[in-house]
Amino acid sequence: MKARVHVMLKDGVLDPQGEAVRHALGSLGFSGVEGVRMGKVIELELQATDAAQAEAEVRQMCERLLANTVIEKYTVEIA
Amino acid sequence: MKARVHVMLKDGVLDPQGEAVRHALGSLGFSGVEGVRMGKVIELELQATDAAQAEAEVRQMCERLLANTVIEKYTVEIA
Repeated sequence: MKARVHVMLKDGVLDPQGEAVRHALGSLGFSGVEGVRMGKVIELELQATDAAQAEAEVRQMCERLLANTVIEKYTVEIA
Repeated sequence: MKARVHVMLKDGVLDPQGEAVRHALGSLGFSGVEGVRMGKVIELELQATDAAQAEAEVRQMCERLLANTVIEKYTVEIA
């Protein structure tokens, strides 16, 4: 079973990496970019066969390792 | 207009970061993880109002900056 986790900075948290990318895009001539937010996507190959159990386990992984829940939010998709 | 870009390593390219996360999850007691692939997600706020034009522009951004197309693949979603 596959799971996909998106980890993004919470709204309101400054994203210096995103700002750097925005400036770089601007210097390459892409002027129509108003904002850039960067995040992580993590694809997990799981042995679990039950979707609910897999989702609960992945949420645990996010809480303990994959996301810094002080400044980051995450979403979990089970496929 | 919002665009979301996913940048992942191409299949077959070794993902040391993913391996490190897999081992860390294992040491935290998450034993059912067979594979981990890490990637970037980039959310762009664009001035463009035409979806086709926005997608073409974002693909250009990927080719020139956001993705290393030698080892990475990318997908573009326009919202």
